[in-house]
Formats: sequence, structure tokens, C-alpha cells
Amino acid sequence: MDFGFDARTEELRGQLLGFMDECVYPAEPVFHEQLAALDNRWAWTTVPVLAELRAQAKSRGLWNFFLPGEHGAGLTNLQYAPLAEITGRSHLAPASLNCSAPDTGNMEVLAAFGSPDQQKRWLQPLLNGEIRSSFAMTEPDVASSDATNIATRIERDGDEYVINGRKWWITGALNPQAEIFIVMGKTDPSAERHRQQSMILVPRDTPGLSILRGMEVFGYDDHNHGGHAELDFSDVRVPAANLIGGEGDGFAIAQARLGPGRIHHCMRSIGVAERAVELMCARADSRVAFGKPLADQGVIRDWIAESRVRIEQLRLLVFKAAWLMDTVGNKKAHTEIQAIKIATPATVEWILDKAIQVHGAGGLSQDFPLAASFAGIRTLRFADGPDEVHKNGLARAELARQRAKRGA
Amino acid sequence: MDFGFDARTEELRGQLLGFMDECVYPAEPVFHEQLAALDNRWAWTTVPVLAELRAQAKSRGLWNFFLPGEHGAGLTNLQYAPLAEITGRSHLAPASLNCSAPDTGNMEVLAAFGSPDQQKRWLQPLLNGEIRSSFAMTEPDVASSDATNIATRIERDGDEYVINGRKWWITGALNPQAEIFIVMGKTDPSAERHRQQSMILVPRDTPGLSILRGMEVFGYDDHNHGGHAELDFSDVRVPAANLIGGEGDGFAIAQARLGPGRIHHCMRSIGVAERAVELMCARADSRVAFGKPLADQGVIRDWIAESRVRIEQLRLLVFKAAWLMDTVGNKKAHTEIQAIKIATPATVEWILDKAIQVHGAGGLSQDFPLAASFAGIRTLRFADGPDEVHKNGLARAELARQRAKRGA
Amino acid sequence: MDFGFDARTEELRGQLLGFMDECVYPAEPVFHEQLAALDNRWAWTTVPVLAELRAQAKSRGLWNFFLPGEHGAGLTNLQYAPLAEITGRSHLAPASLNCSAPDTGNMEVLAAFGSPDQQKRWLQPLLNGEIRSSFAMTEPDVASSDATNIATRIERDGDEYVINGRKWWITGALNPQAEIFIVMGKTDPSAERHRQQSMILVPRDTPGLSILRGMEVFGYDDHNHGGHAELDFSDVRVPAANLIGGEGDGFAIAQARLGPGRIHHCMRSIGVAERAVELMCARADSRVAFGKPLADQGVIRDWIAESRVRIEQLRLLVFKAAWLMDTVGNKKAHTEIQAIKIATPATVEWILDKAIQVHGAGGLSQDFPLAASFAGIRTLRFADGPDEVHKNGLARAELARQRAKRGA
Amino acid sequence: MDFGFDARTEELRGQLLGFMDECVYPAEPVFHEQLAALDNRWAWTTVPVLAELRAQAKSRGLWNFFLPGEHGAGLTNLQYAPLAEITGRSHLAPASLNCSAPDTGNMEVLAAFGSPDQQKRWLQPLLNGEIRSSFAMTEPDVASSDATNIATRIERDGDEYVINGRKWWITGALNPQAEIFIVMGKTDPSAERHRQQSMILVPRDTPGLSILRGMEVFGYDDHNHGGHAELDFSDVRVPAANLIGGEGDGFAIAQARLGPGRIHHCMRSIGVAERAVELMCARADSRVAFGKPLADQGVIRDWIAESRVRIEQLRLLVFKAAWLMDTVGNKKAHTEIQAIKIATPATVEWILDKAIQVHGAGGLSQDFPLAASFAGIRTLRFADGPDEVHKNGLARAELARQRAKRGA
Repeated sequence: MDFGFDARTEELRGQLLGFMDECVYPAEPVFHEQLAALDNRWAWTTVPVLAELRAQAKSRGLWNFFLPGEHGAGLTNLQYAPLAEITGRSHLAPASLNCSAPDTGNMEVLAAFGSPDQQKRWLQPLLNGEIRSSFAMTEPDVASSDATNIATRIERDGDEYVINGRKWWITGALNPQAEIFIVMGKTDPSAERHRQQSMILVPRDTPGLSILRGMEVFGYDDHNHGGHAELDFSDVRVPAANLIGGEGDGFAIAQARLGPGRIHHCMRSIGVAERAVELMCARADSRVAFGKPLADQGVIRDWIAESRVRIEQLRLLVFKAAWLMDTVGNKKAHTEIQAIKIATPATVEWILDKAIQVHGAGGLSQDFPLAASFAGIRTLRFADGPDEVHKNGLARAELARQRAKRGA
Repeated sequence: MDFGFDARTEELRGQLLGFMDECVYPAEPVFHEQLAALDNRWAWTTVPVLAELRAQAKSRGLWNFFLPGEHGAGLTNLQYAPLAEITGRSHLAPASLNCSAPDTGNMEVLAAFGSPDQQKRWLQPLLNGEIRSSFAMTEPDVASSDATNIATRIERDGDEYVINGRKWWITGALNPQAEIFIVMGKTDPSAERHRQQSMILVPRDTPGLSILRGMEVFGYDDHNHGGHAELDFSDVRVPAANLIGGEGDGFAIAQARLGPGRIHHCMRSIGVAERAVELMCARADSRVAFGKPLADQGVIRDWIAESRVRIEQLRLLVFKAAWLMDTVGNKKAHTEIQAIKIATPATVEWILDKAIQVHGAGGLSQDFPLAASFAGIRTLRFADGPDEVHKNGLARAELARQRAKRGA
Repeated sequence: MDFGFDARTEELRGQLLGFMDECVYPAEPVFHEQLAALDNRWAWTTVPVLAELRAQAKSRGLWNFFLPGEHGAGLTNLQYAPLAEITGRSHLAPASLNCSAPDTGNMEVLAAFGSPDQQKRWLQPLLNGEIRSSFAMTEPDVASSDATNIATRIERDGDEYVINGRKWWITGALNPQAEIFIVMGKTDPSAERHRQQSMILVPRDTPGLSILRGMEVFGYDDHNHGGHAELDFSDVRVPAANLIGGEGDGFAIAQARLGPGRIHHCMRSIGVAERAVELMCARADSRVAFGKPLADQGVIRDWIAESRVRIEQLRLLVFKAAWLMDTVGNKKAHTEIQAIKIATPATVEWILDKAIQVHGAGGLSQDFPLAASFAGIRTLRFADGPDEVHKNGLARAELARQRAKRGA
Repeated sequence: MDFGFDARTEELRGQLLGFMDECVYPAEPVFHEQLAALDNRWAWTTVPVLAELRAQAKSRGLWNFFLPGEHGAGLTNLQYAPLAEITGRSHLAPASLNCSAPDTGNMEVLAAFGSPDQQKRWLQPLLNGEIRSSFAMTEPDVASSDATNIATRIERDGDEYVINGRKWWITGALNPQAEIFIVMGKTDPSAERHRQQSMILVPRDTPGLSILRGMEVFGYDDHNHGGHAELDFSDVRVPAANLIGGEGDGFAIAQARLGPGRIHHCMRSIGVAERAVELMCARADSRVAFGKPLADQGVIRDWIAESRVRIEQLRLLVFKAAWLMDTVGNKKAHTEIQAIKIATPATVEWILDKAIQVHGAGGLSQDFPLAASFAGIRTLRFADGPDEVHKNGLARAELARQRAKRGA
């Protein structure tokens, strides 16, 4: 057992921290100004300063860290974890490094399951950062954490598939640069529970695909990263070759996509928590009430200590899950991935709440990133299934493990 | 001891519940449409359906319930409490009954401390619902829960007072119909701690008063009730007769204003919680996951039970505080008012969080009132001073009380 | 609505508080010494100072407060509630006033369902405080919160009933003065779910009844109030006339017994909480660490404030449940009785934990009543069924209520 | 970074798990019987089965694991951590391996600071398991977490030191085999804050040393590991050579002792938590209520999942602290040691509470180890200073760290 970073990680951490200080943080206010000046408020990836950041990151070799293997930077999950945490400190950083969701998951899917043609047509431009993508799974009318509930149909008709259904919370889809959507639907509702679903590529401009509206999260429309669209698919036709893998592979692909996706979210969330602690401490030092700085108030010290203790535990759990994914595979790391999915939003939300409280009403406003971070983290308690579903699954696994130990 | 409502309260509850069902709930979607169509997004009180609601409420005698004594409906706090709770169920209801903050507190101040001229000029049109008002106390650069920190100056210059300072979170001020501002500042920084402050009336169009921007709460700008402005006062001159009470009375007036203000907020918040429970139960009944409705899942039942148990306790505490205000006066009810100020947002926030979770991602969106309610309730943990200040004060009082009992 | 006590309650509160100060508190150390000197450590009701307290209480008319109607003091539940709270402050007080469990519940059962003979033989001496009793319901091998699980058999055999079964956690049964046991068992396992059970009177010395051992709670054997016995019934024969009510009435009698029993426990628990706050404040004033008294530490003030806010809410909920029992009956007050059953141990346990923490290690020891109180309150989370069962029931009722409101 | 155990650790884990299964668990009921049969209830180390366990462990080379360096087994903290966790699963295991507090800490002190004579006279027999020891630091009249409060005096008088003072919570001291006490007191109250204290060796039979009574924790007197004594030192005289180190070294020695002591407690506590999860799962599988096993109830699954998620995080934090102690030293690992001191009891107490609840009333009784474990873990929230002191210190360090990062 060893808790130090390896040499490659240390080197990349140094480079990334330099990039954050030199490029990313200074770009934050510029981004907001330029974003506000856009004609199309959703076209966030056209903001000039972001293009500069991306060019800069690419030239420094800080690119596609998220993707293991030949297509990406070749890092292990454990090597990527502390880098992803750093990118979580600014909402501009993941996009600058071409490491932002949902593109990351979509690139993983195409790298692992895409045909050579699909890879050439869609993966390559995504890896180059030339286009963006969306992932359309969640549906408004059903509890989508239960994949058997998916109602969208993907039906074969000659050389084409015809797609009908309604999706929502499709992140990034309002951005006109999101040129390709990966859509989950059922090709065979009568098949075995986990073989009913398939995934298919739908280009943005396909007739029958309508972008109905943007969903808000606590008042935020999240146009600064492409929003969350409600989509309607009415007799949307795409070539049969757009299917990813074979019919019935949808559930398995979704599962494969979720592991890395979850761990990336968790890593970045720890960066959010660290920035919250920084802000909390700075504010506590600078604000005086009833004759002494907030930093000298016992209750606020209690929050700071609790925050530190909770972050340290959480980070180690995430690192260990990454290590397991690298050493035993995503499938055998299932329980640990569920564990970080459960632990992360609860921990980070708690810390953000306290950081907000230390800031007074300003903490809820646009003057600090805390409230927006809270909103983002709050969504993680649903994303890829609500906490309660994951807890239920984790408990079932624990009960089975204990039963086996008892020989019962 | 008796936990039943008196006859007057029962009668008014019946009338108000009828008004809610017949008029308020049906008006909610209309209001949102008409609000979106306004030229000035902040002029929420000009929305036609709101004017109709107000006319209807007035004609039914459901008007100015909040104000005891000759100027208002003559209800006690205890009679008003269950009515205020009902109005908390829809954000349109308080305004419909001319019972919405900050006008209520401002009317109380003018009714209790205003000169006959001030009452004629400002209180009467407020009571009639012809104009709106704001209350400018909080400042961006200091911990405003400590009134000695107030930095705004109100200086006598001949027949006028000259006001200089910066305020923020001034609710309602972006509404152009908010014609009059009550401003808190220091007339004598060298006086005794609680005699430094004064309050003064500043009409909206006074030169030197600038409305700089709207503060956001999470992503909401709250234009549906006038927003929260940041204001600048630069050599703002008003007649000396605009001072409310005498120089140095500001702190005492603020204290007098806070008691009823807090209890009204708490009452309405319980209505928010009740609506959240309704939505949570309806959703739990209608949503199926993994083969059974959410209402049959143990964890969700636990939340529903906890919500009910917490609301019942909280409501009784608020009623008792109201009863004490009526029977022993606001001053002697200080501890109980602090107690409801502490207990209410914690309880209601918890319930809203669970109601959101039962709704899945939709619960955070514009499709349900839950996330917006969460944002509003979250601000109560700072409004009129953060929880921590009130807990500290309540503990000090408890320690003193116990010391007296011990004869120490 | 009115939160004041009526005149009768105020008068009795004054008398009771006087009795506590003059008699009960001074007797506490004496009781512990005399108890330690007993030959039979379980015979707590033979301790001389307790006999004196009981004589004194009787002579002052502070007797059988718990029992409404002709047999008792004629108080309503709402009148008894604040008195019971006061008795909760010292473990000697309930016994001094002949108001201690399980005798109270047993007297209620005999008063309501006992035959004239049963009342003469057992109720009268209990009311006079001449004997003690136990209530044998819980069984070791089944989840006894589900009454259909009860395995003890009560079988008719000519003029007798024959009882076979195992019981545990039978409070008071180790006290040799507990002369009579009310035993719950099944007379007809094939009957309708809630008509299978009956209750029967079993004198202590009946052959076949064995007292196996005392159960401990944490490390306490609770010999200071008769312990908690495990009992074995092997072919225990009693006259058929010992049956309470008719065959199949057991479940209904148990339900009737639980309402008042729960509210008495909750009332007394609030007294426990109040004493904990007193001790916490006194300790916080007297203990100095790192240069200032604990009472000046922010975290400890937070605990004190939270304790006060929670107690006030809880007490009102208990009072309201009592008022409902008086005005609409125990059955219609079911939800409120469940609510206090859920809320009370959680609240009081939290306060005791904090009071202990303020006392340092001493708080866990025999030098303060806090740890023993914690142990006692902790058992309330199981007594008469675990919290989880009650929450489930309360949620089911809430869901039904909301469904009715929706017209669903 | 690597989360696997090294080969030595894996080997020892295998051997230790075998020893637990073959020897320790079967000995548990025997120990309790033999302990109950002792003439001196405190002489727990004379119980025959324990002697057998110790002989067996010694012969298997499972001995003195806790002690790094030449005197002990030569393990690093990181190697010892998972072994200590295993020993935490049974209260007999630490003593069997000669790894139980307070002897471990005392041996560390003697190994690091003892003179050759002191090592020969006391360390050697302790290492051999021939005698036992106690550590006398905490005092009844002061907040002992603040070492400057220590009131016991150690005064030089010729060739002797004279000790006067009162101590309590001196674990193990009631065991007559505890032949030597390390006593903390002040040699120079006028010296600099952390140079006032010294430590001195006091043999059990020294005149003037009185063992007054045993302290209870909840109702437990903990005679199964030597109890917790209150001691009086009245003119206790020992040779000057009994001083450990020099005058004024007491605080530094205490600090050095605390690091390993805390980490050992935390490691073992994780074993306690794991056993609680085992029992909770087994019970949930076997107990049926309302028609299905508890393991199928959502709330109980939630507890099981939370328990697992919390344990995993906590264990990693403890491992990391151990790794830091090994690689950068106890001093630089200070924050992490404080972090595990804060996190461990909170986490394990929560898990025990839920495990108890799943067991019903039996969970609080002598029939399961859960309530006794709860009592033991609860004391850790005070041991070596209350949580609040450690949180305060950790927050101060975090604030300083953040200030340095900001360049403030």
C-alpha cells in the first residue's frame, strides 16, 4: 500500500496546476462576459476565450486525459483521478482539456463499441474537439433508473431505424455545436430484460428530432455548458449503420459507460469541495462579526474541520475505486463505484452548504460560484439513477457477501 | 390549554381556502404567462391576473390580515398564523391579500412609528395596495446581523438629511412600482451602540439613488416578486420630515419590525412545507420503479413520516410564539421568536429536499415549485441574521435562565 | 387556541414542584444507599425512603394522577401531561406518586376491562400501592411489534387456562413484590388476525412460571425499578376467570393500553430532557478549558440552543396529542400518538448525548444521571414496536389522507 | 499509489484470521464463564483461557505486533493497521497478542524514553506479558484535554519525588496485575506551558497510592479489561530514578504516546464496525416482520449501504494516517491523526446504533456485543481530549494552510 502519486501523475499535476493558474482562472471572468455577448446563448463552445484555452491546453499536451488506450492520453483511472479533481475547481477546465461530460462518455462508447466508420465520422472530430455531442437516455414519463422502463422505440425499417420517443435532461443538446446524439431506446421490448435496449447515433439535423426546451436546475438554465434539453423524436430515420454494436447491446453499453462517467464526476466534485473550503476559509478570515473574525467562531471552525475530514475520506475512496477499475476491471469495482456515487454528492453538498452559510446571502448569489456548484452537485443525487437505487443495490451486494462469509 | 381555532379563525380559514381553490391556484399558470409577456420583467405587480386577484380578495374581505389594530384587519397574531400558512402554499396568495413582504413590515413600521403626514402620504396607498415599497438595511461590505456594523450614513444638513451608502438584497426594489424605500443608516456613529441608527423614507425617484443590479438566489432573479436589488446612495437628499421617529430610533424600530416579520415568514413557510408533502405523496403514488410505486418503498415512507412529524411540531411552536406575542408582547416572546426563526428553515428545507428527491430531476426544474421554494427557504437561514447569531443569542438566554433557577 | 395551563393544572404543578424540591430530590442519594443495602437487590419497592415518599405523596393528594375517571385522580390527559413531565425529572418521582410503568398501564387495563372480582382482587391493591405488577407481551423469538407473531399459547382446559411460552423484557418482574402478571398469548391461532390474542392474569407464585434471568440495557440491570426479566411459562394453569375480557380481546386491550402508556413515557422523557439541559448549562458554566468557560464556546452554545428549540416543539406535540385523546379519543389521536412515539426518543437522545459530551467522561459514569437516562430513552426506540414500524404506519396514514384530499 | 497489502501483511493477516477462527472466537464464552468465577472480579488477566490464548499467540509469532523497532515485531504502522483491525473484532484478541491498551502505549513510552534500568525492570516483563500497567493522566476536577490544567504535583525531595493528586478513568488499574503506573504531573508549574509536566513510574504497592473506586461507562464497570479506577496519590514517594526522561518532558512524551495510541484505537474500532455489519446482516436475514425479512425492508438496506460506504472511507483514512506516520513521522501526520480521531467514533457509533436497532431490544442486552461496543466507542469521543478540541485544532491548521496558499 502506498498513498503517493507516481512520477507521471506528479508531472502532469504540476503542468495542470500551472495551466490553471496561468490560463484558466484568469479566463473565468472573460468567459462570462463573452458568453453574455453571444447571439445564441447556448453556443458556449464558440466563446473565443474557450477556444484559446483549448488551443493552449492542446499545445501543452493537456488533452483527452480521460481516455485510456490508444485514442486518448493513455492514463490509468488512478492517474487521471487527481487531474480530474483539479479540473473540477473551475467549470472552464474540463472543457479546456476536452474532458467534459457528456462528450467524454460518448467518446468512450465510440472508442469501445463504435464501428470503424462511426469512429472516423464521429469519434475523430470529438477527440479533436471540433464538434460536441449529447447522450439521450433519460425520459420524462418513467423512472429511468430502471432501464426496463425506457419507452423510446428504435424500430428497424429496411435499411433504416425509425426512432420515436421523448427524452429530457439531455445535457449539452441546446448547444448548436452538439452535432451528434447517442440515443437509447428499445429495439425489442419482448426480449430478456437487459437485451431490449439499443443505442443509435442520431445527427442533430435529422428530420423529426425537435429540441423543445431547456430544463432549469434551481433557476439555472446552464447555458454555460449547453443546457439540458427536452427532445422529441417523431419518426426520426437514420441509416441502420448508425446502430452502435448490435441490437440488444444498449444496456451493456450503458453500464460500461457509467463506470468511468461516475468516477469522473466524483473526481471533479472533490475539486468543487476543495474550492469551497478555500472560499470558506478566506471568507472566515476576512469577515468580522460581534468583535471577532468568523474564523474564530467555534461553530465555523467545526464546519471547516468536518469539511476537511470528510473530503480526505471521500478522495481516498474515489482513488481506490479508480485503482480497482485499473486492476480488476469496472465490473468487479461495481460496489466501490456505487459507493463513490452515493458518498460524493452527500459530502460535497454538505460542504457547499456550509461554505454558503459562511458567506451570508452573497453565497447564494452570482458573486460566488457556490450556489451554482450546489445546484450542479445536487443533480448528482439523481444522475445515473437516484442515490436510493444505488444504496439498495449496494446493500443487496453486502447482504450476499455476508451470507457467503457465513456459509448461508 | 386548547388546540382548536376560534370561530373567527375558522370562518376566515374557510373563506381563504375557498379563495385559494377558486381563484389563486387557477391563476398561477396565467400569472407566469403574463409575467413573461411584460415589457419590464420586474414590474410583477402590473400583471393583470394579479390585479384581478387583489380586487377579488378585497371584495371578499380577505385584505390586510397581517396588520393588527385599526389600520388592518384587526386579527391577533394567533388568528393570522393559520391564515398566513395557507397563503404560503402559493406565491401569488400573499400579494393577492396585500400581505406580502416587505410591504407588510413597512406598513407595520409606518402604522406604529410614522407621523400623520408619513401615514397619509405612504401608509394609506400601501394599505390600499396602490403602491409598493422596499426596506433597505443589509449592506454588502459588513456582517449586517451586527447592527453596529451598518456603514450607511444619514447626515443632517439644514432641513434635509443626506444619505450615502451601499445596500444589497433589497427585496422588491427592482419593481418600478416600489415607490418608497425605508432606509436604515447611522445618524450618530458616536452614540451608544443601539442609538446610532435611524430610519428614513426615500422616494424611488430621489436623485442620487441608483439601482445597480439584481442579486440572484441560486439561478433565480426573483423577478416574480420584484427581485433583490443592489442600491447605491450618493448624496441622496430628502426632507428632514422623512425621518421615521427620532434620530437614534432606528435599532428599536428594526427590532419591532422583525418580530412580526419573522413569524409571518415562518407561517408561510409551513404552507410551503405542506404543499411539498402533498406533491411528494402524489408523486410517490404515481411513480413506479422496480415493480412497485415509490409510495411502497420504505425509505420514501420514512421521509413522509418524518416530514409530518416535523411539520406538526414546528407549526405548534409558531402558534405558541404568536400566542405569546399576543399575550405578553413581542419583547417577552423574544426567545420563542428566535426559536421559530431557527427551526423553520431547517425543517422546511429538509422536507423540500426529500420532496425534490422523490420527483427525480424534474423536482429541481421549472416544472414543479419545489426548487424555487428551496431557494426561498434557504435564504431564511440568513434573513434578519444568520441562524448562528440567533442560536448564540438563544443559548445565552437559556444559560441566564438556568443560572437564575440555580440561584447562581 | 390557548397555550396556558388551566387553574387545576397550575395548582397541582405548584404542589408537585414543592414535593419534588422538599422530598424527592433529597431522597435520591438515600434511595441509592438503601437500595445497595437490600438483601434482595430486585426488591426496590421495599426501600424505606420510597415508602416514606409514597406516604408523603398520598397524604398530599399527589396520587394516581395518571388514571382518569372514578378510580384515579380524575385528571384529563392534558392536565396530567405537565405533571408527568415533572415526575420525569427524577426516577423516584413516578413511583412516589403511584404513577410508574408498567403498573399504570396494568391499572388502566383492569379499570377498563377487568371484572368486578379482578378489580377487587388486583386493581384495588395496585391503586393503594400495596402490590406491584408486570405486563408480559414481548417474546424473544419473534418480532413482537407484529402481534400476529406472538407464539405464547393460552389454551382452555376445563375451568382453567393453560399457558405455555417464553417472554422477555418483562419490566419489574424481578421485584418479588410484583405479585400479578398480565400475560398476552394466543387462544385461537386460527382466528382472524386481530382476534387470536387474549390477556390473562397470572399470579407470581403460579407453578410453571419461572423467572429465568434479568436482561441488561447497556450494562444496567435496572434493579432500581425491578429489572427486565426473561420468563418461562410451562403448563402454567390459572382459573378461567383470570381471563381479561373475552377470548380474542387481547389485541384490542393491548391497543387501548398503548395510547396512554406512550404519552406517559413521552411526557416523562421531556422531564429527562429538561434535567439534561439544566445539567449541561451548569456544567458549561463551571468548566473552564483553554481559557474560557465551556458556556462561551460556540459549539456548546449551539447545542444548548438546539436543545431548547427541540424540547419546545416536542412538548407542544405531546400536549396536543394529550388534548386530542381527551377531545376526540385515543383512536382518532392515533397519528399524533405515533408522532410523539417517533419524535420523543430521537429528540431526547440527541440532547442527552450533548449533555454527556459537555460533562466529559464523567457524563458516562455513575456520577451523573445522564448515561442511565440515555440507556432508558434508547429503549423507547423499540418499546411498543420499533420506530420504523410506527413511521411506516404514519406514512401510510399520510398517504391515505393526501389521496382523499386529491379525490384519488 | 497502490491499495494492495504487501506480502508480509498478507501473510500475517492469514495467520491472524486463522488464530481468530481457531482460538479466539471459541474462547469468548469460556472467558466470560471463567471471569464470572474469579474471586477478584478485576483480575481479568488471570482467567485461564486468556493465558492459553496468549501462549498460543506467542508460539505462533503473533506477539507485540504494535511495537515497531527492535523491541517489538518490527512492523510498520501501515502493516500493523489491518492486523489491529482484525483484533478489534473480539475484545479478547488484543490481549491475546499482547497488543492491548494501555500497555501498548506504556511499552512505547518505555521503549522510546525509558532508561536502561527502567526498560529492564518494567518494559521487559510487559513485553513478555508477565505484568500489566496503567497510565494515569486524566483528573476529575479539570478539563484534562488542556494539559496546562493538570493539577497533580510531582515534587523533588532529595533522592525522591513526592506525588500528590487525584486521577480518574485510569484504565486497567483495578486489575491487581497492573504492577506499574505511569503518572503525569507537574514538576514545575511556573515553567513554560509545555515544560511544566513530567512523567514518573509508580509501582502499584507504593504507600500513599489508593485505588478508590471503579468508574462505570453506561452501566459497565469494564472489569473484563481491568476497569477504570479513581486513584488518590497522597505523599506517594518514589526514587528519583523513576522519572521518565527529564523534568519537563511530560508533555512531549504524552504527545509522542498519543499518535500510535489513537491509530490503534481507530484500527480496532473499524473491526468493531465490521463485526456490527456482520451481525446486522445476519439478523436482517433471519428476522421476519410483517411478512418479509428485515433484509428486504428499504430503511434497513439504507443502513447497511451507508455502513459499508462509511467504513470504506474511514478505513482508507486510517491507512493513510498510518502510512504518513511511517513516511513523514508522527508529527507531520498530526492533522491526519486528528482526522481519524474525529471521524472514527462518529462513524462507528452510527453503525452500532443501526445494528442495535435491527436487533430490537436484544441488541441493547448482554446477548450481543453491540451495546458494550457502543459504550466503548462512545468513550472515544472524549479519550485523549474531546472531539471538539481536536476539531478546533484541525480547523486552525486548515485555516493556516489556506492562508499560506493565498499568500496571506
